[in-house]
Amino acid sequence: MEGMLLGIVLVISLLGLFTAFLLARWILSKSTGSEAMQKISNAIKEGAEAFLRTQNRTIILLAAAFAAILFIGYGVVRGHKEFDPVGAMQLAGWITVSFISGAVCSMIAGYVGMWVSIRANIRTATAAMTSLNDALRIALRGGAVSGLLVVSLSLLGVGGLYAMVSLISDIDPTKIPLLIVGYGFGASFVALFAQLGGGIYTKAADVGADLVGKVEAGIPEDDPRNPAVIADLVGDNVGDCAGRGADLFESTAAENIGAMILGASLASLADKTPGMGFSMGVIGVMMFPLVARAFGIIASIVGIVMVKMDKEEKIDPMQALNRGYYIAVVLAMIGFGFCTRWLLHSPGAPNAWLYFYACGVIGVLTSVAFVFITQYYTEYKYRPVKSIANASVTGPATNIIAGVGVGLECVAVPVLVMGAALLSSYYLGKSSGLPAAGLFGTAVATMGMLSTAAFILAMDTFGPITDNAGGIVEMSEQPESVRVKTDRLDAVGNTTKALTKGYAIGSAALAAFLLFQAYMDEVRQYAGLAADHPFPVDLSKPVVFVGGLIGAGLVFLFSAFAIRAVGSAAEAIIAEVRRQYKDLKRENDMIIFPKDFKPDYGACVDIVTKAALRKMVTPGLLAVLTPIVVGILFRVFKDEANPLIAAEAVAGLLMVGTIVGIVMALFLNNSGGAWDNAKKFIETGALGGKYLTVNGKKIKNPTHGAAVVGDTVGDPFKDTAGPSLHVLIKLLSTITLVLAPLFI
Amino acid sequence: MEGMLLGIVLVISLLGLFTAFLLARWILSKSTGSEAMQKISNAIKEGAEAFLRTQNRTIILLAAAFAAILFIGYGVVRGHKEFDPVGAMQLAGWITVSFISGAVCSMIAGYVGMWVSIRANIRTATAAMTSLNDALRIALRGGAVSGLLVVSLSLLGVGGLYAMVSLISDIDPTKIPLLIVGYGFGASFVALFAQLGGGIYTKAADVGADLVGKVEAGIPEDDPRNPAVIADLVGDNVGDCAGRGADLFESTAAENIGAMILGASLASLADKTPGMGFSMGVIGVMMFPLVARAFGIIASIVGIVMVKMDKEEKIDPMQALNRGYYIAVVLAMIGFGFCTRWLLHSPGAPNAWLYFYACGVIGVLTSVAFVFITQYYTEYKYRPVKSIANASVTGPATNIIAGVGVGLECVAVPVLVMGAALLSSYYLGKSSGLPAAGLFGTAVATMGMLSTAAFILAMDTFGPITDNAGGIVEMSEQPESVRVKTDRLDAVGNTTKALTKGYAIGSAALAAFLLFQAYMDEVRQYAGLAADHPFPVDLSKPVVFVGGLIGAGLVFLFSAFAIRAVGSAAEAIIAEVRRQYKDLKRENDMIIFPKDFKPDYGACVDIVTKAALRKMVTPGLLAVLTPIVVGILFRVFKDEANPLIAAEAVAGLLMVGTIVGIVMALFLNNSGGAWDNAKKFIETGALGGKYLTVNGKKIKNPTHGAAVVGDTVGDPFKDTAGPSLHVLIKLLSTITLVLAPLFI
Repeated sequence: MEGMLLGIVLVISLLGLFTAFLLARWILSKSTGSEAMQKISNAIKEGAEAFLRTQNRTIILLAAAFAAILFIGYGVVRGHKEFDPVGAMQLAGWITVSFISGAVCSMIAGYVGMWVSIRANIRTATAAMTSLNDALRIALRGGAVSGLLVVSLSLLGVGGLYAMVSLISDIDPTKIPLLIVGYGFGASFVALFAQLGGGIYTKAADVGADLVGKVEAGIPEDDPRNPAVIADLVGDNVGDCAGRGADLFESTAAENIGAMILGASLASLADKTPGMGFSMGVIGVMMFPLVARAFGIIASIVGIVMVKMDKEEKIDPMQALNRGYYIAVVLAMIGFGFCTRWLLHSPGAPNAWLYFYACGVIGVLTSVAFVFITQYYTEYKYRPVKSIANASVTGPATNIIAGVGVGLECVAVPVLVMGAALLSSYYLGKSSGLPAAGLFGTAVATMGMLSTAAFILAMDTFGPITDNAGGIVEMSEQPESVRVKTDRLDAVGNTTKALTKGYAIGSAALAAFLLFQAYMDEVRQYAGLAADHPFPVDLSKPVVFVGGLIGAGLVFLFSAFAIRAVGSAAEAIIAEVRRQYKDLKRENDMIIFPKDFKPDYGACVDIVTKAALRKMVTPGLLAVLTPIVVGILFRVFKDEANPLIAAEAVAGLLMVGTIVGIVMALFLNNSGGAWDNAKKFIETGALGGKYLTVNGKKIKNPTHGAAVVGDTVGDPFKDTAGPSLHVLIKLLSTITLVLAPLFI
Repeated sequence: MEGMLLGIVLVISLLGLFTAFLLARWILSKSTGSEAMQKISNAIKEGAEAFLRTQNRTIILLAAAFAAILFIGYGVVRGHKEFDPVGAMQLAGWITVSFISGAVCSMIAGYVGMWVSIRANIRTATAAMTSLNDALRIALRGGAVSGLLVVSLSLLGVGGLYAMVSLISDIDPTKIPLLIVGYGFGASFVALFAQLGGGIYTKAADVGADLVGKVEAGIPEDDPRNPAVIADLVGDNVGDCAGRGADLFESTAAENIGAMILGASLASLADKTPGMGFSMGVIGVMMFPLVARAFGIIASIVGIVMVKMDKEEKIDPMQALNRGYYIAVVLAMIGFGFCTRWLLHSPGAPNAWLYFYACGVIGVLTSVAFVFITQYYTEYKYRPVKSIANASVTGPATNIIAGVGVGLECVAVPVLVMGAALLSSYYLGKSSGLPAAGLFGTAVATMGMLSTAAFILAMDTFGPITDNAGGIVEMSEQPESVRVKTDRLDAVGNTTKALTKGYAIGSAALAAFLLFQAYMDEVRQYAGLAADHPFPVDLSKPVVFVGGLIGAGLVFLFSAFAIRAVGSAAEAIIAEVRRQYKDLKRENDMIIFPKDFKPDYGACVDIVTKAALRKMVTPGLLAVLTPIVVGILFRVFKDEANPLIAAEAVAGLLMVGTIVGIVMALFLNNSGGAWDNAKKFIETGALGGKYLTVNGKKIKNPTHGAAVVGDTVGDPFKDTAGPSLHVLIKLLSTITLVLAPLFI
């Protein structure tokens, strides 16, 4: 039984990796176009690879130090405790090995995914010269390599570690997830730094390029005369592609392990209730998350391969992507139903699997709801973005006030949707007829939501590939007809990037609830309490309340560091570009470029690489160390009545931190997206467009200038701090999962 | 015993009111200066009084509707329940009467306080023509009228209601606070709308006046040629003076009642433990908050009267205020020590009163810490404000990014200070030797912090009085030497306003913790549980977690409404001013005003009055209705294991809402203050100052322009949304206190 299920999981994840390999080979076989295009693409490639290599070196150093601390902390300082599943050294060994595996797999997935993306961009650009359909497919399949790598590798890691522990040691299989929780933490650790470093890089370059390029010099985006433009294009890859990949890698890894822990304790309880045991036993329930995810990979592969446009290329590329997505969703839901019936069936509660299946459907519906809400708040068809654009008429200050207003407002509906999803899946689980199955219901909802993660991630990485393709076409001065094609793809890419962020925060919220239930379960196990022993996280206790306060403060301080890093790095870029432009002539406030003007791209790439690496360390360490310090220091408050008070305070920190992190991320992502599109709306010609003609002279439209200020402020919100908060939320969960024994 | 203590409380509050009357008469006896000054002062007076009258009419309507709902809800819909202290109609009657009393007293305090302030401003301006010392004293005593009215009236209300209930009915005195909790809610209800309406008014006028006046037309602040300038001066009174007064009125009222509830349950528990009873009995402990506050009023009066400058007026006016404040603090602490020894002494734990006294000292130290932290983040001597000023060199976008960074960062240290204050006072109380006295320790810390509230409020209202005095001097074109004097006072007023905000948020945080302990106590009482029966607020239950999520979402949505209201009202003002300026000539982007230019002030006052009243209703109702809806709807989740789940979910909403509200208010207040002072820093001549000379021409300095954008964005943050959040936090506590029985 165990062997067969593990076999299915491992074979399907290898299949996913093999498919990624085939897709990559298919992409690399495509034409790379003219020399001019290659020159630009190579510059992007060099910059991106150099940054990722340097970044990974820093991360490896930090991770190695942390692995050593973990090993010593568990093996030597803490020593063996009564309820540990294995001896101290063995516990320390497995936790450290799984941490390192998680970190290494995440880095590999990120690096290889980006390696393919920065090769797919020029091929997309070249294909766009002949066929939009070919360009679309190259870009999506380039993204799919990332998507499949991330999801398959995370599944392979969890499955493989489980198999290793099961082969080498002979402990109770339901305890194995406790030994491999380090995998999720390793993945979060890498994701945090990757997202922070990449996010700072991409937005410092973008803000710098925009402010001097568009606003001061009056040249278009991606103009080759802007010295910061290559850094900007590199940023799309290291931020959106490598960063988001690491983010979703850890989501799926952590959620798999968390759901296994919850599943094991649910099934053990059911087994103890006469007649309630599951048909496929405890192992079946525990393996359910992995098997369901494996079926999701197959569904995503089919969906990706099915994406194509009709011969005349009349349909919207978004429509083609949506068709593929719907295919993937339907297939995933069929597979999910099959898995629930197979592995979650209990003769004592014959309809229980149907209730769980309904939870999975709720998860999918929640992700759809998040996508629609994100669209409403960030697309210029709707009121919010229009109100920002209108406020730009009275200048940058009212533009900012309106944008902040929209960002703060957009939190309300997602909060209600999340609440409804949590409560309905909880009560569905509870009504299933099985004992204490409510929390497992919320876990199944999360699995439903994440079942098409590979497809979503493919659409996300599609964004930077098409963005880069557009940049290459623009900079190599291709004919207008080609630009029109890449612009169409680029617009779709912007939409998919925004949607993925909605999806990522929704899944982070559901996954977080699952993960902190797993944390509480783990605390109970290590403290020798029964799985149904009450362990409330009582916010009315001063110590727990203070834990919650610290969690809220952490989210704010972390965001401050992320945003400020972008601000100061951008200022350095602006100073550099101004230096390069200093001696050029101006007319009507716009620069007149000499024909032979050659900007120094390398200087900007260097500045931003160094700044991003330097600035990612403080917020990263802050996030990692805060829960540890609280958990260890607050042990002084232990007394007879509250032996677990430190673990409880950490839970308070975790839960309040998660709530604040979610609403803050929604605020940052959506206000940023709304500002961006308010500017784009004006650039379509609304409210005067980019330029006005006054007394026969072409002058910059101040309304557009105000909107650019908002767009710029939104950049670090939506692409640095916001996405980093997704990772922070999950890091808090995984770090507490791994270190729970130290807080007891 | 009870009679004597009540007598002390009532006599001292009447003494406070009489002192306020004497101070007001003293102020009114001063000279009102020239006709030109009177004309301006009268315009302010008319605008402010008209607004407050209209606003109060709206609030009275809303409050009357709410009082009816309260009465029907308690008297008819709910009916009598087993553990109610009195019959249904009597319970409904007292709660409604106390709600109305709280609302009426708050309105009276706000109206009379502002009535005096808008008469003190011109007298301060006139006095400044001869003596800075006189001007300082008039402004401070004008503020003191507000301060004394607010604190004395809130004490008189609670004491008077207690006396009434005690005379009319014959219930157990320790249950009386449960009947008069409505007083705090009535006060919060009025405070919420007063702060929202006033906050929207003041900042819409300010933003509108600044954006067209300073930035577009290039005229100084308070310039009579700006049509929005009278509305701006009116705003200082209705926002800072009436709004903040209502805010602190409810702080002291709610905190008094909450501390009485906690004191009663502590003393009852102690009485049941042999040998642990208090020397002055349960009544003594319960009355302690009122008596301690009464001594605080005397201390504040002495401090206020002692404020004066030396003959040569060489010392800084701030120094004179500080001297008075220190006198008040020392006296209050002596009185506080006397009260603790007198009323909190227990023969069984002879040192307990010393522990409680130490808690009081912690409260005072916390308020001092908050004052210093606020200074660090908002004064231009220090790094944060300087970093914003430097970021302005690269334009408004980097200015905004830097300011948001500072605002998000400034949350961290206050969070740690609050955490330390809560935990240390909790553990001091716990170590006092009395049973379950930890929470009472945190309550005593709050009382310590609020003991000098009257003095703090006097300093706060000093701000708008000196601001208005400066405006009157500027607009009536007095000689430079007078302006120098009022500028000195105005600068001090800006500092005291910022400090009070730090104080207000610190006290809101401590008071909130006290209030939700009172809520939990009340839920236990109405549910018939013993005072030490566990009633955890378990955030790991999905229903409670969702309550917490909704609390966080509420804070964001409420802030969105407040900020957006300012944005849209300001846009209307800008359009109006632009209309009035449309036909004027410009040179170098600056308007050349004809000598006979007469702006239409009334049009701007009208626009902003209507907008503020219209826009305050939605956020106000949102705040009031959300906890009620959650508490009533979530009763569907009640089951055998969780009979109090709805009350618990409301507690989750309340606590997470409070945490998020505190950090959000800190973010909004301090980022706004920092932006304001970054602009002021540049106006002192830093980074080029206001104007640059290029090729012999005087042009506006773009760095200053960027800083003005930040200042403008910060306006609704620091004076509308931030202070409204203080009220929201306390409203959540008082509304749940009043409606707790409905959630059971």
